[in-house]
Amino acid sequence: MILSERNLIEHIRKNVAASSVNGLIKGIGDDCSVFGKSTTDAWLVSTDMLVDGIHFNRKWHPPRLLGRKSIAVNLSDIAAMGGIPRFFLLSISLPPWLSSEWLFQWLDGVSAMLSEYDCVLIGGDTVTGSELNISVTVLGEQHPAGILYRTGAREGDIVYVSGPLGSSAAGLEILKKTDGDTSSSKNLWEILINAHLDPVPQVRLGQVLCASGCISAMQDISDGLATDLSHICKESGVRAVIYEQRLPSLPVLDEVCETLQLRKLDCLLRGGEDYQLVFCVRRGSEKDVEEYVKKSGDFVVHPVGTIEKGQGVFLEDGKGDRREITFQGYEHLV
Amino acid sequence: MILSERNLIEHIRKNVAASSVNGLIKGIGDDCSVFGKSTTDAWLVSTDMLVDGIHFNRKWHPPRLLGRKSIAVNLSDIAAMGGIPRFFLLSISLPPWLSSEWLFQWLDGVSAMLSEYDCVLIGGDTVTGSELNISVTVLGEQHPAGILYRTGAREGDIVYVSGPLGSSAAGLEILKKTDGDTSSSKNLWEILINAHLDPVPQVRLGQVLCASGCISAMQDISDGLATDLSHICKESGVRAVIYEQRLPSLPVLDEVCETLQLRKLDCLLRGGEDYQLVFCVRRGSEKDVEEYVKKSGDFVVHPVGTIEKGQGVFLEDGKGDRREITFQGYEHLV
Repeated sequence: MILSERNLIEHIRKNVAASSVNGLIKGIGDDCSVFGKSTTDAWLVSTDMLVDGIHFNRKWHPPRLLGRKSIAVNLSDIAAMGGIPRFFLLSISLPPWLSSEWLFQWLDGVSAMLSEYDCVLIGGDTVTGSELNISVTVLGEQHPAGILYRTGAREGDIVYVSGPLGSSAAGLEILKKTDGDTSSSKNLWEILINAHLDPVPQVRLGQVLCASGCISAMQDISDGLATDLSHICKESGVRAVIYEQRLPSLPVLDEVCETLQLRKLDCLLRGGEDYQLVFCVRRGSEKDVEEYVKKSGDFVVHPVGTIEKGQGVFLEDGKGDRREITFQGYEHLV
Repeated sequence: MILSERNLIEHIRKNVAASSVNGLIKGIGDDCSVFGKSTTDAWLVSTDMLVDGIHFNRKWHPPRLLGRKSIAVNLSDIAAMGGIPRFFLLSISLPPWLSSEWLFQWLDGVSAMLSEYDCVLIGGDTVTGSELNISVTVLGEQHPAGILYRTGAREGDIVYVSGPLGSSAAGLEILKKTDGDTSSSKNLWEILINAHLDPVPQVRLGQVLCASGCISAMQDISDGLATDLSHICKESGVRAVIYEQRLPSLPVLDEVCETLQLRKLDCLLRGGEDYQLVFCVRRGSEKDVEEYVKKSGDFVVHPVGTIEKGQGVFLEDGKGDRREITFQGYEHLV
């Protein structure tokens, strides 16, 4: 197709979508859209489409874990707004060659994940197609404390991430290099492979952060820190500076990057699908937030940067040199 | 796939879906699911997946009309509950060979239909795939007068349909027989072709029927009268008897059926995608309903049958002979 996905989305945002109608609180441009009769009692909605061979590889993705991940991806969008996930709709296009065993295992994974997050399936569609395609829609309630958008970051804010970065990207590289046969790879590497195959959405932490009352902007890290933070910067009209030496990662990442000849910094900044949260805290509230999340669920969050005037995302290395890393390689409508 | 779609849906209904949780008013098993904090202020949601070559044929379906129909299909689900459509989410898997011209025309159709029904696009996803796949989710508000389910039909009720049947099925047959080159077919046939390519969802009539306060059960006719009425019968625990000679159709249908050697009765009973409404009226309220819909929008509705004790859908011919026509050939999750 001649048209880039970015141009298409711009066209849709300008010509098809609308943002200011009765009952619509937030349209396209955040992790979820927000609608409802009042701004204290609103619903969040988000949708994702997963295509066989593009978003997952059946060769190494066990169907049960793919079922879990199909739900996790959307849970993460609700987490990014601090919301409470409630209902799912699930449409699936099934090729005739797909075994019913694969399908039942996939459904087991879907079912387990729904139950772990107190969600229920309330609708969907099953169709026949030549390509396996999974479309998931989630509905969530807003947190009583409010809704966290991408738009509230201000100069002086501190940028945090909720956990180690690059794990899923490194896990995917291990799977690619071994063509899914990870029996000979080291046991320690499993944590990275699992981060890719069975990611954990930060639903509870998102709610705790929302309840803290100290978060100015938030979103999930699905496309890599550089890209996802650039959305916050664009929507808030600010610049973010990330300090290279503060980026958290699992200890095993160094070894894997060395063995597989991956650039660790690429994993940390551009690696997608970690489903951690990136959020901004007003300067002066850092201690309050860190203590609140510790107390509320033994969560540890990591300050990695600051918000400045300007635009774009910049990386500062150990010597104080900066370069722009604004990256928007992976695109979604919401 | 060994598994039938029906078995899959049964498995999902039993093992994955739930119906009685806080905030869920109606789960899987109607045209829409219904959720909300109160039963007077609820939201309706429905989703459909359309696959290239299965649900539409690009050869004869102009992209602009397919865009309109992509929205119409979901509008009809809201119409079936008497609701007010508000928001859409739209995910699309785009094959690399698809032209941007096709896509922009499709989007024009989407946009026009949204605007005609006072709806807005609030989210979605765009991905790359090898097969064109369109997933549409609609959110609507309940009508202040209530929500019309499939479950309320009772013995003695009169069964109505909202307009001519079999038009879309006959239109599709014309397109198939001419391989989309309808230039030589008669002008009068266009109304059938249009019924297939650009169907009109009965949103306004659905709301009027809801407001009438006399409707015991309703659903849209997407899979043919026999199948769709059997859903009402199953959910309500009743039998429906349809009188063959009362089934409404466009005058041109006879000529087309004769020319193309189609069985007219098959078109009327099993032809899908008319997107008319089938609904039940308490005995004694027929006149009230007919006058109310006439007054409210010059609508004409057609009594075609009655509800009895028992189960299944039966057809009674001109001689008073009956045969069962319960048909469930086309299947959807909701």
